[in-house]
Amino acid sequence: MTSPSLKRLVLIGIGTGGLDQLTLAAVREINAADLILIPRKGASKADLADLRREICAQVLTNPATLIGEFDLPVRNEATHDYRERVEDWHDAIAQVWTQTIEEHLPGGKGQIALLIWGDPALYDSSLRIARRLPDVAVEVVPGLMSMNVLTAAHGITLNEVGEPFLVTTGRRLRDDGWPQGVDTLVVMLDGECSFRHLDPAGITIWWGAYVGMSSQILLAGPLQDMTPTIIETRAKARAERGWIMDIYLLRRHSTG
Amino acid sequence: MTSPSLKRLVLIGIGTGGLDQLTLAAVREINAADLILIPRKGASKADLADLRREICAQVLTNPATLIGEFDLPVRNEATHDYRERVEDWHDAIAQVWTQTIEEHLPGGKGQIALLIWGDPALYDSSLRIARRLPDVAVEVVPGLMSMNVLTAAHGITLNEVGEPFLVTTGRRLRDDGWPQGVDTLVVMLDGECSFRHLDPAGITIWWGAYVGMSSQILLAGPLQDMTPTIIETRAKARAERGWIMDIYLLRRHSTG
Repeated sequence: MTSPSLKRLVLIGIGTGGLDQLTLAAVREINAADLILIPRKGASKADLADLRREICAQVLTNPATLIGEFDLPVRNEATHDYRERVEDWHDAIAQVWTQTIEEHLPGGKGQIALLIWGDPALYDSSLRIARRLPDVAVEVVPGLMSMNVLTAAHGITLNEVGEPFLVTTGRRLRDDGWPQGVDTLVVMLDGECSFRHLDPAGITIWWGAYVGMSSQILLAGPLQDMTPTIIETRAKARAERGWIMDIYLLRRHSTG
Repeated sequence: MTSPSLKRLVLIGIGTGGLDQLTLAAVREINAADLILIPRKGASKADLADLRREICAQVLTNPATLIGEFDLPVRNEATHDYRERVEDWHDAIAQVWTQTIEEHLPGGKGQIALLIWGDPALYDSSLRIARRLPDVAVEVVPGLMSMNVLTAAHGITLNEVGEPFLVTTGRRLRDDGWPQGVDTLVVMLDGECSFRHLDPAGITIWWGAYVGMSSQILLAGPLQDMTPTIIETRAKARAERGWIMDIYLLRRHSTG
């Protein structure tokens, strides 16, 4: 049964920063929205609120579209269990979304958009949070992922001919080492340069920070040579800007 | 030393079919081209030449841009070694590109564009072929990949929270089985429904054919139940259209 107050929530992948990474579908959906939600994380620039405001300023031509900013709840670090901490946090975010929607579109139907950095499918919780909202139909507009932008900037492929690749996190690489059966890794969410713990022999790294933005930094070469340079460059960039978002691809020369 | 006849070759990711999957950067680069190369594969519709012509018809507004169609060489199946066969084929394609460019932009400089289905980084040989051309600077404009479009259409994520996923081929899945240490697989280039060889217990499949096109077909559910339906649907669609392009995501319930 379709509820009379059914709302449509569209998660729009916006790519990794450059306005020209938006797809035509993303531009269309931004302009089809009655309300665009923009999260704020206190004074942190890592919330990318400025980027989202800039996208709205540049591509939003529908004068009826409202913009609703809201403060993102913080995780309760007192909750010991990681899974429970994340679940509680997602509950809290869903509640703030609901409140902000109700505030701007009281009682009625409507189309709400969230601008998701990269693609909503990749290391992003918006889909899981959206499922908590009652009477809301969720749709996804795919966006460029940072791994596409990284490989394009370096002019490399994700896979070797007919070969697989694994997309993983810094924590996994640190805890489990190089996984079996695969020679190419894409590593995300790595705040600690976990590649430094690998035996670098035969490994090449293609690293990028702020990929696709005007402040993009790219470094590539044999892991052995690049490790100190990347650690130093990353620390400096992070200190200067107050935040960093980076990603890298590692390829091991096949030992076969 | 920069050659006076240096050409710029731009590989433009166009996503998986829908015009609205084009990024603003892709539209800009299409219009910045002096020449757009369009490959033809005989009478096969799998060459997507019509899709590329349609994109040019819809978004190309620069009257000076030339369109150069060419016949894609065929692989010499008499060459026994797979690697050698592919290398020879790529050499032959590079030669045809060079001839077609010379024909339309004789002797001079210029900007050449190739419209790449999906993203040039993923299971595509254009970057490897482009590297064979002398006096050509290669650039990449990233595009949506079929795995983004698949997950968006199904409203699912690629990864579970903090977990890795592997992108692989049908042949690998068939030959090696389910790989160790990962519960999510994205499988491409699978002409033989290789999922049928897995023990289906605890596995869910999200399958899509022609994802992002108007003829898109989506099926999802427990692998055990879906296997015959997908095999039948795929065979029927392929027979009707003469070609098929499909992709799927498999997720195993964590046994932990």
